[in-house]
Amino acid sequence: MITIAAFKWVPDFARGFVRDLRLRWALEEAGIPYEVELIDSEMQKSETYRQWQPFGQVPAYRDEEVELFESGAIVLHIAATSKALAPADHPGQAQVAAWVFAALNSVEPRAQNYIHLRNAVSEDLQKAITAKLHDRLNALSDRLGDEDYLEGRFTAADIVMTTVLRELAAEEALSGFPRLQAYVDRNEGRVAFQKALSDQLADFDR
Amino acid sequence: MITIAAFKWVPDFARGFVRDLRLRWALEEAGIPYEVELIDSEMQKSETYRQWQPFGQVPAYRDEEVELFESGAIVLHIAATSKALAPADHPGQAQVAAWVFAALNSVEPRAQNYIHLRNAVSEDLQKAITAKLHDRLNALSDRLGDEDYLEGRFTAADIVMTTVLRELAAEEALSGFPRLQAYVDRNEGRVAFQKALSDQLADFDR
Repeated sequence: MITIAAFKWVPDFARGFVRDLRLRWALEEAGIPYEVELIDSEMQKSETYRQWQPFGQVPAYRDEEVELFESGAIVLHIAATSKALAPADHPGQAQVAAWVFAALNSVEPRAQNYIHLRNAVSEDLQKAITAKLHDRLNALSDRLGDEDYLEGRFTAADIVMTTVLRELAAEEALSGFPRLQAYVDRNEGRVAFQKALSDQLADFDR
Repeated sequence: MITIAAFKWVPDFARGFVRDLRLRWALEEAGIPYEVELIDSEMQKSETYRQWQPFGQVPAYRDEEVELFESGAIVLHIAATSKALAPADHPGQAQVAAWVFAALNSVEPRAQNYIHLRNAVSEDLQKAITAKLHDRLNALSDRLGDEDYLEGRFTAADIVMTTVLRELAAEEALSGFPRLQAYVDRNEGRVAFQKALSDQLADFDR
């Protein structure tokens, strides 16, 4: 049986955006059942939890084979077992991994700075932070072109990229990027995403 | 034959830190020969290069099986083929992947903000940026403890984590983290690292 760790409580603005959503979504797409272990702030600091998740973040993941942390690594681990999330061949899985890293290292840091820092810095720096984000969004939009998905079909790459982009969409920061907004809308429309989202939200009321 | 893309020119401060170093280091550890394709600013913007590397960054990678981008994905692809870089079993490789994602998503964004933004923001924000970085460095140092490597033996995880941390070491930002400074020194002392570094530097004079 698979167990994932999620937070017992987060402020309202973070609900629906916590990163265990990536795992829930991937597991729903793959049709794999899972249990949720809710972590409170005391457990988060504990030695026991730090053994599982060294930084005290969520998500963390456990199955019969491995204990893992980092949403990107966990999503790729799940994707390696399900054709719903990636091609079965190594080259296809490596391409999916490239896009997962792109989402988490080339796009997300710039998106997070845009969301969390731009209102606290000088006008010049605000422009620089916005330009750095737009550089990546333009490149991503160009690459996506008229395709529905990053790798020709829906994969784990779209799960991770969508979760990064939908935080920008929530800030209305994709209005100049209609292809990316449509990409987020398309992926958020999936049954598996909606189920994952409502399950994350429901767990805060448990 | 393996080909990697690296920049033909970067400013002096970036020499020795460009991310193709991660690939060079991994390939040296694995004893795999490779060729370097140097990318100038015109090629960087070209359609052809964007097909290979959608964001126009380096590195990019090509072998007989795949074309890839994102240093994290490429290092894991190389690690899957060499016992010098990761255990041969899937659980061991998944643990290495977790640390590669941790380096690139949990540590690097905070390190980069510390390096590039802290001198351009208010004192309060400077403190917050520093605190966010130190939170991750403390957790990493606690987890490393008295071990030499992240996963009990040298792996690809140490390559990527070291390249993230050595940028902080170059700013003297690890002085409060003696275990992490020793970790960087230990890994930078490896023959394969030194060869990779001198090859990157030499290519700027080609």
